[in-house]
Amino acid sequence: MSLLVVGSVALDTVETPFGRAVDALGGSATFFTAAASAFCSVQVVGVVGDDFPEEGIRFLESCDADLDGLIRVPGESFRWSGVYSYDLNTRETLDTRLGVFAEFKPHIPESYRSTEWVFLGNIDPELQLDVLSQIRKPRLIACDTMNFWIEGKRDVLLDLIGRVDLLMVNDSEARELSGDYNLSRAARWIQSRGPRYVIVKKGEHGAMLFTPSSVFFAPGYPLEEVFDPTGAGDAFAGGMMGYLAQTGRLEDADLRRAVVYGSAMGSFAVERFSVDRFRDLRTEDIEDRVRHFREMMVFELPIPAKVNV
Amino acid sequence: MSLLVVGSVALDTVETPFGRAVDALGGSATFFTAAASAFCSVQVVGVVGDDFPEEGIRFLESCDADLDGLIRVPGESFRWSGVYSYDLNTRETLDTRLGVFAEFKPHIPESYRSTEWVFLGNIDPELQLDVLSQIRKPRLIACDTMNFWIEGKRDVLLDLIGRVDLLMVNDSEARELSGDYNLSRAARWIQSRGPRYVIVKKGEHGAMLFTPSSVFFAPGYPLEEVFDPTGAGDAFAGGMMGYLAQTGRLEDADLRRAVVYGSAMGSFAVERFSVDRFRDLRTEDIEDRVRHFREMMVFELPIPAKVNV
Repeated sequence: MSLLVVGSVALDTVETPFGRAVDALGGSATFFTAAASAFCSVQVVGVVGDDFPEEGIRFLESCDADLDGLIRVPGESFRWSGVYSYDLNTRETLDTRLGVFAEFKPHIPESYRSTEWVFLGNIDPELQLDVLSQIRKPRLIACDTMNFWIEGKRDVLLDLIGRVDLLMVNDSEARELSGDYNLSRAARWIQSRGPRYVIVKKGEHGAMLFTPSSVFFAPGYPLEEVFDPTGAGDAFAGGMMGYLAQTGRLEDADLRRAVVYGSAMGSFAVERFSVDRFRDLRTEDIEDRVRHFREMMVFELPIPAKVNV
Repeated sequence: MSLLVVGSVALDTVETPFGRAVDALGGSATFFTAAASAFCSVQVVGVVGDDFPEEGIRFLESCDADLDGLIRVPGESFRWSGVYSYDLNTRETLDTRLGVFAEFKPHIPESYRSTEWVFLGNIDPELQLDVLSQIRKPRLIACDTMNFWIEGKRDVLLDLIGRVDLLMVNDSEARELSGDYNLSRAARWIQSRGPRYVIVKKGEHGAMLFTPSSVFFAPGYPLEEVFDPTGAGDAFAGGMMGYLAQTGRLEDADLRRAVVYGSAMGSFAVERFSVDRFRDLRTEDIEDRVRHFREMMVFELPIPAKVNV
């Protein structure tokens, strides 16, 4: 049940209506690892600069992550800063400094190359392809991307998408990628380009899983206090992939549960700044939240469902 | 299982990216009745002008509706015209002509006054209150409203809300009414003002039911073709109230199923212009769609849910 993530390990400066965090631990690989580590050990591929705080490394170590693929090079770590609107639904990027990430060429350690479960965090699709070329025969390759790459590197991205099993995008990305406003048609279009499974993330409105034979919805968790939305999507991915890697199965029923575990982990991510909510998250907290998801979604009919769950 | 609706019976001129309908049958009471009549007979309270087409009356009769409370008076019928954006998510009202609705004073026929189930469609809250004063002791009073009344008649509306059991609003209305951006807190605020149950409709993102003890989510149905969103909310209300009236129960499990039946009827409404989809809708179509909702929402856990369904 080896699970590999490649992505950013970064320092975020975030302002929300509730406060401000400066140079807080962030990045897609960090949030992913924080969430996935509740289910299994994670192999991290990434780069940090010589300014990266030891505390950040210690956090990843405390997640029992394998950091052989996380290299430290001279220069500045990847830094992102942004400010969220009053309603937390939109954010403005104030600054992005790639630092050592600008020259990053992922090198997959030999010990990672037989990994079974792979998550390609949102980085340049050329790097994502490069990672795939170094991995032997994974059971599931999942991939995230963003509008920046859809607009700037569409051909490379489509090449990549043809090689992955699961694409995770948000609703606006699904629409932009497919050129279709309708999310169901957009997902089917993406599936026609390669991925067997498509996840469409809709933020507070939840997530949709499209498989070849069915559609599944998980709602957004109705938190009364959302503190900082940063990292929710990567924590979702970490929860989903971690659950699948731990379970070792890929039936529709497993994928559905994995989406709910992902939704739960995404909902924890937004309760505090940075990865802080994961520092003291207990297994019971996760099980309670997943049970609550089920309670929010369950209804009975006299007629049986046709899907096998 | 008597079900009363008061609302508009109108003529809509609608333009969507897919075409245009002129003076098509519309109005909240019309869509409500079209949907609810799949479950039970509906008592209609409303007004039309002497220009109202016989075909419209015949449609309501074909729904087996009781039209003793639908009066015809000299003048023009209520007319609304609007145009939808390319993505169907926003619409612009081009014209609203109240016509005979401007002077409407609902009179509840004696044969309606012992009705058990009441839906107050989106009209002036003073008229909604007036209707309530004429009804004896219903089991469930549900009510819709809109931003126009929240802004213009807030005090009357709050008085009304204190007397209803179920408020159905969309997300922006819930936020505006409560002054709270967070939908969970907004719903709890509304409950604190009276209604035991709150439905928050989120259009393509589905609907949330808040009861005193739980939250339930139904997703929006992932239609690949949405033709005309007009009337979806009223068809939702009709499906929900019709199902409850037919069932005669108000347990959480019944309300959940009712929300799904409402969601199904809302999803049918948008497949054609006006009430056209209801003209040939079969019971099997409804059962198929409800079963599909279940298939989209179901997942199993080794741990049992705590709610009683």
